[in-house]
Amino acid sequence: MAKQKKMVEAITSMEEDFSKWYTDVCRKAELMDYASTKGCMIIEPYGYAIWENIQHDLDARFKKVGVQNVYMPLLIPESLLQKEKDHVKGFAPEVAWVTEGGGEKLQERLCIRPTSETLFCEHYQKVIKSWRDLPKLYNQWCSVLRWEKTTRPFLRSSEFLWQEGHTMHETAEEAQELTLRMLHVYEDFYRETLAIPAVTGIKTEKEKFAGAEATYTIEPMMHNGVALQGGTSHYFGKGFAESYGIAFTGRDNKLQTPYQTSWGVSTRMIGAIIMVHGDDSGLVLPPKVAPIQVAIVPIAQHKEGVLDKCRSVYEKLCDRFRVKLDDSDQTPGWKFSQYEMQGVPLRLELGPKDMEQNQCVLVRRDNGEKYTVSLDGLEETIEKFLGDVHDNMYQKALKNLEEKTYTATNLNEFLTIAKEKPGFIKAMWCGDEACEDKLKELTGGVKSRCIPFVEDHVSDVCVCCGKPAKHMVYWGRQY
Amino acid sequence: MAKQKKMVEAITSMEEDFSKWYTDVCRKAELMDYASTKGCMIIEPYGYAIWENIQHDLDARFKKVGVQNVYMPLLIPESLLQKEKDHVKGFAPEVAWVTEGGGEKLQERLCIRPTSETLFCEHYQKVIKSWRDLPKLYNQWCSVLRWEKTTRPFLRSSEFLWQEGHTMHETAEEAQELTLRMLHVYEDFYRETLAIPAVTGIKTEKEKFAGAEATYTIEPMMHNGVALQGGTSHYFGKGFAESYGIAFTGRDNKLQTPYQTSWGVSTRMIGAIIMVHGDDSGLVLPPKVAPIQVAIVPIAQHKEGVLDKCRSVYEKLCDRFRVKLDDSDQTPGWKFSQYEMQGVPLRLELGPKDMEQNQCVLVRRDNGEKYTVSLDGLEETIEKFLGDVHDNMYQKALKNLEEKTYTATNLNEFLTIAKEKPGFIKAMWCGDEACEDKLKELTGGVKSRCIPFVEDHVSDVCVCCGKPAKHMVYWGRQY
Repeated sequence: MAKQKKMVEAITSMEEDFSKWYTDVCRKAELMDYASTKGCMIIEPYGYAIWENIQHDLDARFKKVGVQNVYMPLLIPESLLQKEKDHVKGFAPEVAWVTEGGGEKLQERLCIRPTSETLFCEHYQKVIKSWRDLPKLYNQWCSVLRWEKTTRPFLRSSEFLWQEGHTMHETAEEAQELTLRMLHVYEDFYRETLAIPAVTGIKTEKEKFAGAEATYTIEPMMHNGVALQGGTSHYFGKGFAESYGIAFTGRDNKLQTPYQTSWGVSTRMIGAIIMVHGDDSGLVLPPKVAPIQVAIVPIAQHKEGVLDKCRSVYEKLCDRFRVKLDDSDQTPGWKFSQYEMQGVPLRLELGPKDMEQNQCVLVRRDNGEKYTVSLDGLEETIEKFLGDVHDNMYQKALKNLEEKTYTATNLNEFLTIAKEKPGFIKAMWCGDEACEDKLKELTGGVKSRCIPFVEDHVSDVCVCCGKPAKHMVYWGRQY
Repeated sequence: MAKQKKMVEAITSMEEDFSKWYTDVCRKAELMDYASTKGCMIIEPYGYAIWENIQHDLDARFKKVGVQNVYMPLLIPESLLQKEKDHVKGFAPEVAWVTEGGGEKLQERLCIRPTSETLFCEHYQKVIKSWRDLPKLYNQWCSVLRWEKTTRPFLRSSEFLWQEGHTMHETAEEAQELTLRMLHVYEDFYRETLAIPAVTGIKTEKEKFAGAEATYTIEPMMHNGVALQGGTSHYFGKGFAESYGIAFTGRDNKLQTPYQTSWGVSTRMIGAIIMVHGDDSGLVLPPKVAPIQVAIVPIAQHKEGVLDKCRSVYEKLCDRFRVKLDDSDQTPGWKFSQYEMQGVPLRLELGPKDMEQNQCVLVRRDNGEKYTVSLDGLEETIEKFLGDVHDNMYQKALKNLEEKTYTATNLNEFLTIAKEKPGFIKAMWCGDEACEDKLKELTGGVKSRCIPFVEDHVSDVCVCCGKPAKHMVYWGRQY
């Protein structure tokens, strides 16, 4: 039958091929599609609605900090990009260059922004004159482009959507404080909105952002034990500001250089949601960002009064929740699979028997449990259920993170874990980049994730070279 | 005194130099700044906040129509752009080409999207299979780039922000209906949200969009009588769909081609707000998009209780309105000028005398009138005042539009009006492009704006050639 053509097809299981499972979910849940532009993707309505919910929540958190949104140009003249040497060295290999415009060859190449420190600095140089103009707390929501050879939906694509905050401060202390504050905004957002726990801390010198003095990171663990760099917050000190000639008259009437930060998260968070919470039936969405929080599926909808009742339930719920009433002519079984695949947190079933009893059936996506509940006080019941779904999703993810975090005190242990047990490894480090390189080489890809804010002292010596240890580091493979 | 350094400076008067007045307002009201990237601009926090309010309002209107947001790639491969011949002819001269990426010369040039019909078509070709997949009502909020030689903030810049809707339908009737429906969404938005009246209608063949069968337009008139193309809605018929091989199985089980529309408005609307409503004291913002709707200015704020009282008024109002309490150490006079320049619809003054009387002073930005009102029921008073401001702004703009609309029945009249009276000219037209060319040449730039939905029959013959007239056209100069 034509109406059945779009049958929900099974997806590859996580166990069988995690990577194929991931792309199956991306496609079958209708989050994205591939485009003919190499390395770019199309974000379909269902995927984009998740991004809109993320933006809405995060933007409100930024505004509470006093952040203001702006928009900077898409293109950066080559000469402007080159002013900060470490920065250009880090980004030049991966930018795209515009060399022709309006039918003519350009005198100067323009790169599509890979990030916008340079543009913000150029603007700040013009508008920051006095200590009274500080702090400046600007952010923009935009797309950026970094040429990638191998790409993966949401996780690594040449073009991606993100927000980039760029701030300027009177003192180093204030800038450092803001750098950490924004990291904590991300941490709260991951926990409270995405139901994702994570390890946070500072990146090693080797792994920090091009041009930064310090890079802080939030590193959630995917279901398969692989890390994802989920967001970063950078402290720049005066480096960029000096390169771009930014100066202000201080309270002491002397010319001073301001201190700078930047911080960003991207559509990669959608990848994290998929890989932290998903299962073999598809997507499992945290209620706070789910485009549909409750899917109403009428049972025996041809029977008298069923659709009317479902509609009245819909009307009652739709002011408070994101609800969809599916009165299409697909079978209930087809609908169940569809909303499971799309990760809708709650399914509400209502048929003739339920009507008689003034009840409905609620099915939780996170654990598959079924509950028969009264239609009286349904809003409160659903509110509570959505909260429970969120909490359970967080606890499950936390359990995964904790269970897949191992400790290694010598190189042999480290290599065995790296080989056999995907996850994070807590191990001491001497502070030498050579040891990071060596561990990465010996394991075929395990890198330092971060030095956490509170370091467990798991041994006295570096897990790699045996010299006295300086820090405890979380290590792991990454997407 | 240092604190006075940022004194509000006078701007050029409209009378003296409208064009300079415009850029003065853009800069002094802190809406935008110039960037070193040629033809691009920086949208500063105050300007961007207006754009956010516009987006929020318009997006809700789109969603009521059933439109879904998506995101398409920034870059279009040259081969994809070339598939629709009229379209590529229209846009190729003004695109920017990426020719290098990731350190290598690209095999195929990629253009930065000037508009995204081609990308939407490529995607629709993949996802539209059956009449059950229709209609598709997609929209994206993004930036686009069209190389411009001469630029002007918001009105004409190489890069600008906009939304572009792209829809596909089963029948021509449904697509045509949607084309007009979206034009009316724009018309309602201009009237209800921006307080801007406009002329609407269909573009002549000469002025329509590259590749469209019909282009509808909304044309508000600026204070100086010059038109601005404020938004367009295009009906494409099957042209693009055929070029891009889009086909679906119809209800009759036969393969059919869908019918297409696209429609968009941009940050140019901010230019319209400035030029329709502004005056010699600066910006005048419609309350519905004003980032600050009420500015509270304490009078004699050092006096006991004044600031506390202002704060309690602020607390009372801030859940319902966008309010700013300015307790900085600038003088009240400085603050008055500042909020006038920034076009804040209502100023609320409160000093020791007002406290005694349980009252405050409200000053309207649109007409400068002062009112002493009770603090009891202040929310309702402000709600009413903001409504009055909106209505008065609309009426003033409508009066300007009506007063500056003239009628010409012969060429001599037409040329005299075009020379002496800036505004719209209603005149008959034979339907021949040669007459449009001739009128433009003779007047040095007056073009057809549109054929309105209801045509006044102002004469029997073409104002240019004297042959029998087919349509009444609105003519005018444009930004």
